Amino acid sequence: MSEADTYQPLSPETIAERLGSLACMSEHVGGDPASWSVREIGDGNLNLVFIVTSPSGSVIVKQALPYVRLVGDSWPLPLYRAFFENCALERQAQRAPDAVPKVFHFDESQALIVMEHLTPHIILRNKLIAGEQISGAGEFVGNFCAQTAFRGSELSLASADKKRDVGLFSGNVAIPAITESLVFTDPYFDAELNNHNPLLNSLVAELRQDVTLKTAVQTALMKFASNTETMVHGDLHSGSIMATDSELKVIDPEFAQYGPMGFDLGMVSANFLMAYFSQPGHRGDNLATYQDWILNVMVASFDAFDAEFSRLWHSERTGMLYPKSLFEDQGQDSGEACSHVLANIHRDALVFCGIEMHRRCLSLAHNADFESIEDPAVRAPLEARNIAMGRELILNAENLAHCSAVIDMAKAHNVGDFL
Amino acid sequence: MSEADTYQPLSPETIAERLGSLACMSEHVGGDPASWSVREIGDGNLNLVFIVTSPSGSVIVKQALPYVRLVGDSWPLPLYRAFFENCALERQAQRAPDAVPKVFHFDESQALIVMEHLTPHIILRNKLIAGEQISGAGEFVGNFCAQTAFRGSELSLASADKKRDVGLFSGNVAIPAITESLVFTDPYFDAELNNHNPLLNSLVAELRQDVTLKTAVQTALMKFASNTETMVHGDLHSGSIMATDSELKVIDPEFAQYGPMGFDLGMVSANFLMAYFSQPGHRGDNLATYQDWILNVMVASFDAFDAEFSRLWHSERTGMLYPKSLFEDQGQDSGEACSHVLANIHRDALVFCGIEMHRRCLSLAHNADFESIEDPAVRAPLEARNIAMGRELILNAENLAHCSAVIDMAKAHNVGDFL
Repeated sequence: MSEADTYQPLSPETIAERLGSLACMSEHVGGDPASWSVREIGDGNLNLVFIVTSPSGSVIVKQALPYVRLVGDSWPLPLYRAFFENCALERQAQRAPDAVPKVFHFDESQALIVMEHLTPHIILRNKLIAGEQISGAGEFVGNFCAQTAFRGSELSLASADKKRDVGLFSGNVAIPAITESLVFTDPYFDAELNNHNPLLNSLVAELRQDVTLKTAVQTALMKFASNTETMVHGDLHSGSIMATDSELKVIDPEFAQYGPMGFDLGMVSANFLMAYFSQPGHRGDNLATYQDWILNVMVASFDAFDAEFSRLWHSERTGMLYPKSLFEDQGQDSGEACSHVLANIHRDALVFCGIEMHRRCLSLAHNADFESIEDPAVRAPLEARNIAMGRELILNAENLAHCSAVIDMAKAHNVGDFL
Repeated sequence: MSEADTYQPLSPETIAERLGSLACMSEHVGGDPASWSVREIGDGNLNLVFIVTSPSGSVIVKQALPYVRLVGDSWPLPLYRAFFENCALERQAQRAPDAVPKVFHFDESQALIVMEHLTPHIILRNKLIAGEQISGAGEFVGNFCAQTAFRGSELSLASADKKRDVGLFSGNVAIPAITESLVFTDPYFDAELNNHNPLLNSLVAELRQDVTLKTAVQTALMKFASNTETMVHGDLHSGSIMATDSELKVIDPEFAQYGPMGFDLGMVSANFLMAYFSQPGHRGDNLATYQDWILNVMVASFDAFDAEFSRLWHSERTGMLYPKSLFEDQGQDSGEACSHVLANIHRDALVFCGIEMHRRCLSLAHNADFESIEDPAVRAPLEARNIAMGRELILNAENLAHCSAVIDMAKAHNVGDFL
């Protein structure tokens, strides 16, 4: 996992020469490498991403850069993250079949992954901004989160295998550190890289004075940083899901780590809620219909999570946690135990959800749902609703027994004035 | 950390020949190796332990056996645990100065540690059975638990250092697996290695039918197995503390792992409570006085934990958790946050405490507090009180705001009939 001296960033001009002899390129792109069309599409914050196309096929080539692309080479970031991304893609492919792109080739020294080109998929966030509906979105998200949560935990894995994997992923320090600061801490003080809509100044000042809130957020950070329940995607938002109108895939697991089982569900829920609150900045007539659709996706994702997790609980519970020797083998149902585990996951998820809602308006990496609303005066009241609801979630997650309470909370905040 | 082919268990007859040339032996034992007196005193469950003595000094030589001594070679156990014990002793010496024996020599291939001979210390459990008072016992225990909990966590350590250490300790799979099964799971079903006083049969049957209880215990197991808040001793009981009438030391950290900050405090508290409940089997006239003294030790250990943890919180909080940027640097006191962390530690500790109280009467490794009461009919009602209180702690830890509530609970159970 050392960063080899031979590392060289790719460019559209060098891809044919550098990757032309790979068997996977012949197989999935085909044709004469000299005639390949190469387009750099990396719109994320960290990497180079190329689409390599010929008349007979295409692939994605993703290469880590040794710094944070969003910030520049003043913020170095180890290339070894590509190793962990590849590890995560392997595990996700096993745990949630067909939910992630296929990997064709991994080159550790070049921090480079050649993978399936998802087409005609586009980023889910863009569809949400455009007001498009995707059938099965909530079910897909819920199933992905449940399958990866369950099958990466000691509910399923042998303890020795899971502990070995925790040891492996503990080598990834730099990437979790980004989440730890940008998501959990920076939003709550005047951190150097922060930015926010100046019209939110008084709301933000009030938030940063709230000791109870900051304590709850730091408790969640301790859980995120010290809890290895399962391998989480670590950055599951609507920009790391690609979709057609009926198929979805999860991409970009370079923030994968062992963490709390509710983390991914919470992060992606926050992105649904931010899509919801930002809609008045994007459309008029069909606003209410589309906002309702988004909330229904969130409900469906929780329902699918619970159903799939319960199914796996009863059919694949082979790990040392909540073993059958204590329940079924004694003639007892383990449904109460499963419900208890799910309740803890929901509570954690809603706290993480609230924190993600905050950091996307207050910290470094904002999202297009709000940012593409150009007029700060239009954007501010919508961001304020989002921030206010995030605070409610963080402080009251313990008391929200079911996702329906979250939906009611969202509807109440959607008509409120929090500026 | 592989088990070298050269490993050979020591014996009293071979120690002079095999260790006679070590500088640490000359320094701390001295004299002619041929004249050393060697006594094997391993009364624990896992290892060989020798006292090597000459007229001018003495040391302890501790060597891991490749199986569980209590059970025999049918239960193999990796020698690499000596490596982790040595790692743990190093860290404890830094984090809780003067609380653990000094290490003079470590030989990984022989799974062997030469260390300070604590004398005239004896095992705390034996003193508790004999009715002896040790001044400062609670303060020592509380300080040790607080210092190791705080200084091994990301409240204190740099995240990269802590994560590297988590990765290192994740290599220790076999030892945590013992705790996971013997402590958390075996007590609650008819596991092969279990034994209990037959007079407890109906109580035990009732306990094993309690789904809510078993769910709570497995929730605690998930926390134990998946939570890397700090490096815990992992087996802190009155048999792993040695004492004179005024000095105490913690020994035997071979069960060290990264785990919940409340684990050690909870385990040792259980051992104080078992000492308390077993006293009627050991003495007459001064029973009430000595039982009160034991409870006062437990209160003192919680009070010392809180005081020392708070002191470190305000003086050594240099890690990424609850950073000063969110509190003090904004002119705000972080006392509320510290109290919140302490409340979570107490809650976890009391659940672990209840579980330890159960397993010591129901699983493989019982303790002498109860076992040295020869008449099962005398022992049973005392064990029953202990088991009943353990259940209360597991189910109600959330609602016990302060250690004084635990003391009241102990006093109520001490006069109850739970058979």
